[in-house]
Amino acid sequence: MSARKMAIIVHSGTMDKLYPVLMLASAGGAMDVEAHLFFTFWGLNALKKGGLEGAKLPGMMSLGTGMMKGRVRDAGVPSLPELLRMCREMGNTKIYACSTTMKMMNVKEEELIPEVDDIVGAAVFLDIALDADVQLFI
Amino acid sequence: MSARKMAIIVHSGTMDKLYPVLMLASAGGAMDVEAHLFFTFWGLNALKKGGLEGAKLPGMMSLGTGMMKGRVRDAGVPSLPELLRMCREMGNTKIYACSTTMKMMNVKEEELIPEVDDIVGAAVFLDIALDADVQLFI
Amino acid sequence: MSARKMAIIVHSGTMDKLYPVLMLASAGGAMDVEAHLFFTFWGLNALKKGGLEGAKLPGMMSLGTGMMKGRVRDAGVPSLPELLRMCREMGNTKIYACSTTMKMMNVKEEELIPEVDDIVGAAVFLDIALDADVQLFI
Repeated sequence: MSARKMAIIVHSGTMDKLYPVLMLASAGGAMDVEAHLFFTFWGLNALKKGGLEGAKLPGMMSLGTGMMKGRVRDAGVPSLPELLRMCREMGNTKIYACSTTMKMMNVKEEELIPEVDDIVGAAVFLDIALDADVQLFI
Repeated sequence: MSARKMAIIVHSGTMDKLYPVLMLASAGGAMDVEAHLFFTFWGLNALKKGGLEGAKLPGMMSLGTGMMKGRVRDAGVPSLPELLRMCREMGNTKIYACSTTMKMMNVKEEELIPEVDDIVGAAVFLDIALDADVQLFI
Repeated sequence: MSARKMAIIVHSGTMDKLYPVLMLASAGGAMDVEAHLFFTFWGLNALKKGGLEGAKLPGMMSLGTGMMKGRVRDAGVPSLPELLRMCREMGNTKIYACSTTMKMMNVKEEELIPEVDDIVGAAVFLDIALDADVQLFI
């Protein structure tokens, strides 16, 4: 029997949205659920070097990002880069960068973090999503 | 045969997003579809006492919240608290508060409305979502 | 064997969110996947005449809409109206307008683009979504 799968389209690049993405992936990892994460549009920023560390709250709330990071830490929740590392260590999270977004935003492969497994288009990811047990757009 | 299930991660706390959550849950309830709603991050505010009543439109549109409430009422659509009551009366909507968000936002159990069925973490809800027919992130 | 199905609730009316909706629908169309798109709340604006052409980036980023359109064009990505035309030509994208939103926003049927297949409520769409292979809220 093959592992259960979760397919997430990561469209947002803000801290409040990246947390659920990586919390679900790491929770899934511990439950033997594969997580396939497709970073597109604003989400692609999270895959640039320093992107996860620099993610902010959206809009005018961005001023409160530092305070939110403090609350996250005080609650014993790992930082975004730590969550990504945990996901990678469990070995069942796959990271995809959207090829169309890279062209649109003029992002080169060497600007991306090494954790990116593949650069693919929407059709390839849709094929993965069609076979997944859970699909989310975040 | 067990009932069909819908699992919704409620990440937003704004009026425009809480409406689809409760409209889907109440529509589902009438169709014998169980709705499992997991309120996390900004969404948790909706579960605090007075939270549904006080939900506003996002960002600068928040100034138009009163006008939108008027339109909603004129269209014969119930208010958010009325929708929640309808869902509870049908008996197949379950309300979960995210335990990690409660810690992060320093929210105590006694601050939550009595309609909350359980306080759980992401892993518990993911397990419910994996068995659901519909999963949404709102 | 019936075609695979994708059901998308289109709640947003901004350009950055309408792109993934129509990119997924057109990618799906080429893979023989039916796309059922339910335009509700802010999303309904995209179905008004001139709505797709006039869609902007959200909030304060709206000032950068023209620049983003340039980048999209330079990357060889079709415009939103072109994507909709491609979806319609493939013949497996269905467009639904939310009846409750039309009442709330006081939108008349004759204000909508002719590509709208049907005006339905949340319950009708939920029924379609329950039988779909992929469900997303965008």
